[in-house]
Amino acid sequence: MNRFLVLRDAYGSVQAILPDSKRHQFEEIVKSLNYESVLRIRGVVRNRGKARNPKIKTGDIELEIDDLEVINEAPPVLPLLSDQNALEQTKLKYRYLEFRSEDMQQKFRLRAQVTSRLRHFFEKLGFVEVETPTLSQWTPGGAAEFLVPAAKPNLGRFYTLPQSPQLYKQLLMCGGIDRYFQIARCYRDEATKSDRQPEFTQVDFELSFTSKEKVMQLVEELIKTAWPESLNEYEIFSSPFQRMKYEQAMNDYGTDKPDLRIPWKFENCPKKMASILKTGVEEKENFSARMFIAKGTGRHCTEEPMSVWKKLIEINPHAQPFDIFIPPNQTGFNNWDSDFDTNDLVTKYDIGPDDAVVFCWGETDGVQRTLGFLRNYLADTIGLRKKSGFKFVWIVDFPFFEKKQGNFECLHHPFTAPIKEDEIRLWKMEGLENIIAQHYDLVLNGVELGGGTIRIHDPKLQRHVFEKVLKLPTKHLEPFFEALSYGAPPHGGFALGLDRFIALLSQQGNVHTSIRDVIAFPKTKDGKCFLMNTPNEAPPGTLERYGLQIVKGEEKQNLV
Amino acid sequence: MNRFLVLRDAYGSVQAILPDSKRHQFEEIVKSLNYESVLRIRGVVRNRGKARNPKIKTGDIELEIDDLEVINEAPPVLPLLSDQNALEQTKLKYRYLEFRSEDMQQKFRLRAQVTSRLRHFFEKLGFVEVETPTLSQWTPGGAAEFLVPAAKPNLGRFYTLPQSPQLYKQLLMCGGIDRYFQIARCYRDEATKSDRQPEFTQVDFELSFTSKEKVMQLVEELIKTAWPESLNEYEIFSSPFQRMKYEQAMNDYGTDKPDLRIPWKFENCPKKMASILKTGVEEKENFSARMFIAKGTGRHCTEEPMSVWKKLIEINPHAQPFDIFIPPNQTGFNNWDSDFDTNDLVTKYDIGPDDAVVFCWGETDGVQRTLGFLRNYLADTIGLRKKSGFKFVWIVDFPFFEKKQGNFECLHHPFTAPIKEDEIRLWKMEGLENIIAQHYDLVLNGVELGGGTIRIHDPKLQRHVFEKVLKLPTKHLEPFFEALSYGAPPHGGFALGLDRFIALLSQQGNVHTSIRDVIAFPKTKDGKCFLMNTPNEAPPGTLERYGLQIVKGEEKQNLV
Repeated sequence: MNRFLVLRDAYGSVQAILPDSKRHQFEEIVKSLNYESVLRIRGVVRNRGKARNPKIKTGDIELEIDDLEVINEAPPVLPLLSDQNALEQTKLKYRYLEFRSEDMQQKFRLRAQVTSRLRHFFEKLGFVEVETPTLSQWTPGGAAEFLVPAAKPNLGRFYTLPQSPQLYKQLLMCGGIDRYFQIARCYRDEATKSDRQPEFTQVDFELSFTSKEKVMQLVEELIKTAWPESLNEYEIFSSPFQRMKYEQAMNDYGTDKPDLRIPWKFENCPKKMASILKTGVEEKENFSARMFIAKGTGRHCTEEPMSVWKKLIEINPHAQPFDIFIPPNQTGFNNWDSDFDTNDLVTKYDIGPDDAVVFCWGETDGVQRTLGFLRNYLADTIGLRKKSGFKFVWIVDFPFFEKKQGNFECLHHPFTAPIKEDEIRLWKMEGLENIIAQHYDLVLNGVELGGGTIRIHDPKLQRHVFEKVLKLPTKHLEPFFEALSYGAPPHGGFALGLDRFIALLSQQGNVHTSIRDVIAFPKTKDGKCFLMNTPNEAPPGTLERYGLQIVKGEEKQNLV
Repeated sequence: MNRFLVLRDAYGSVQAILPDSKRHQFEEIVKSLNYESVLRIRGVVRNRGKARNPKIKTGDIELEIDDLEVINEAPPVLPLLSDQNALEQTKLKYRYLEFRSEDMQQKFRLRAQVTSRLRHFFEKLGFVEVETPTLSQWTPGGAAEFLVPAAKPNLGRFYTLPQSPQLYKQLLMCGGIDRYFQIARCYRDEATKSDRQPEFTQVDFELSFTSKEKVMQLVEELIKTAWPESLNEYEIFSSPFQRMKYEQAMNDYGTDKPDLRIPWKFENCPKKMASILKTGVEEKENFSARMFIAKGTGRHCTEEPMSVWKKLIEINPHAQPFDIFIPPNQTGFNNWDSDFDTNDLVTKYDIGPDDAVVFCWGETDGVQRTLGFLRNYLADTIGLRKKSGFKFVWIVDFPFFEKKQGNFECLHHPFTAPIKEDEIRLWKMEGLENIIAQHYDLVLNGVELGGGTIRIHDPKLQRHVFEKVLKLPTKHLEPFFEALSYGAPPHGGFALGLDRFIALLSQQGNVHTSIRDVIAFPKTKDGKCFLMNTPNEAPPGTLERYGLQIVKGEEKQNLV
């Protein structure tokens, strides 16, 4: 025994054998060697003949050891390999050991391959890769941005890490770099949102003299070019991608990122049912009672998941009351209400014994959103969102603004141009809620993969949006307004979330995957890295260097 | 008049002409149009016939205007275009207008092209591109690192922006990603050093089971592959690149980054001259008197540049006294000292009437460095460092440590392995100054283009270097030491300064070029961006968000 070793590298493994002639020299070493040690072996590759193992790729051969050197010995027990069910925290702490698995090797090689193809696509079309600064200036509106304090001679002043290269790429357009791209590192300080990372990667491009249609076509070509052959699903997506207006998406699916692998659409509840539901509601204006039929989920609609869904939905400030009916004589809970015109329902909608009727009533927008969440939850009970396959859809014709507490905010961002027909109303500030933006979002399996807009190139209109409509401070934007004034070409672009795209690709479209899986050294939801113990105390002397002090009481919070 | 327009885009220009039939419709517009306005013109391309202009690329044709729309009108005067001698500050403020010049368009297209080739090279050889974090952990020793404060739940804690992906790439090696590369953004907070940028780009790679020789070969192949055809100088560099030991570089050129386009080497002053020079010196131990002959520079060695050089050199704490002799009867200053054996000098070194003898005396190391500076200054007087051409040289066999105020510091970085023969002495702490590191620097025209090392893969030796030799705190490095202990393969790598490489390429090897020229939105020496006005005050509420306050007295320093 113990005369065999399995040698592994990034590309596979092979068996090495200690021949009798070398036993006296190496047997003790081979016996005592720990797994995962690093060796240098010199030997002869031999045919294993009858002893061949057809189950493994290199099973026809073996390496007969002639010389052996232990380069770096591993300890008897390794943290992860000894425990297949290691906690998320432990896995992240020993991320480099996770990397040794075939699964991780494949994921990161896939990521590199797809990234490379994305770049080739742009290069072929004459896009110029330009690196833009990450020590940048804050922009009003948008996610919280990380600060980077400056030292002398700029004490008391700060850079910020950018959410995207938005302003810089627009400045490049002003500079006549008519086709730009960048695989850009971006930053958002919103660690508490689930499956967000404080730093992430964006495939960013912009071009001059373009249109919404041209950009969308480019993105479709981009994705097809980058698609790895290893995914059989290549044929699944149709060309061009499906398109859907924002209004329709909200109406049919209660979300602007519908997962179209789920076939269920919303509709109004039958009249009698709706009027019964309405009686208990105080606010009768803007009332809706809407429903969808969740085929095949009846048996899963028991009290237990129901209470979980209720809790999840109640977090949302717009949540409205909902309920689920399943036909009588089912194993699930049974609340089939005979006051409602249930027979009509069954007949009209061809409701089978294992179907569920999910319905919600109250303020229209809240009803739609509540049903939107439920559509995903119910689909999850029968694995619809885990199944492989890729359904792309463009969501278009977004409203430019939404009203929040009496103020207008942008649905996307303030650099977006309105559609031509709505420009005059924007100037006149008439019906701002109904102005349509030249904005397009690409959704894959219910996940927002990216978005883009045609930008405003008229400096006066850009100022008008910031000052008059959004009422935001523009001091830091003056240089940008000035740039637009020196003959900026019309332009537009797009940004694709690379981490999310790779995560979906590497899981054959399963949305229950985390971008953490395809980021080499990710942080937790709390923004921590358990491997390097970041964030941590400032290095000695650095706070003084930056003229800063920690506000009293915060010093010892939450030691890693 | 005024019936012609010149249309320009990123690729060239063409003449448009307003035909008589369209005069009534567009003449007023064409007359009043300002330069750099953005137009949309529809028309017919016509042969200019006899009116052709052979001096311009599109001189055979013209565009006969059929329809014309002014998309974005520029003002009558643009900041930069109206002033060819705009100040550096103004140029940076209107960087996007600079981008409209042919020179800038070419530079940034060159940068993109070379970057693309670098990546192709790595991809072809199976290197995997991996993105590593920039919200990172500080490492002891090395340049000052920017801080990034964290918000709740990590208040009072900080990330740092990395100087390089050093630790992460070594962790990837520990994880079996056996060939890694990345075009990585790196950060250093040392804005005061000339021609440094707070953020810069590094072509970073690392591989397992390699050697100094293999890495150096890879780098040479990398550079040849990336070399743009547009540079005629392609043939100039020989293969393999020249190699020089650190000791020889210091001895012959007084620097570890010699510009080998300058033919002058140092040697000892003749005996009589040396002994005269020594008489006035207090510290006789470790005394040298060294010189070099600067051919063809005699007429430039007047009092004026001499006093400038003196001032520049005196900044250096190691500076030693120097002087320059030129043969009698020259137009420059004449301090030919007949006490010295000048005739011998003239005969032995074949000193011509326009040559200068540059000599320096005192403490050996300071003498070498002083002459090293002077070699460059003198070369500049006759344009030797501006001339086109590329001289690569590898500097190898660096000392691992240098003694500074009684303590040992690393010449490069503490992750470097010593050469095999010196490993035992490192363990025994014997003759540390003489230990040779497996470190290699690539120098082009006197500019350090990049460097790399073979790393320590033995966790005990790595700890020994940090704790025993360098006496640095290792708390933050414990996870790294642990990673090495789980079977880390031997590995090594290299990092190439992309900005500097592109700067040299774009100027045909002229070293009097700034990396700012090839960075899209660079910062000044002081770390300021005049375009976006960064750094600036923190956005409202953010200091509170990060639990920080500015130390009193620093608030109003240095308004941008």
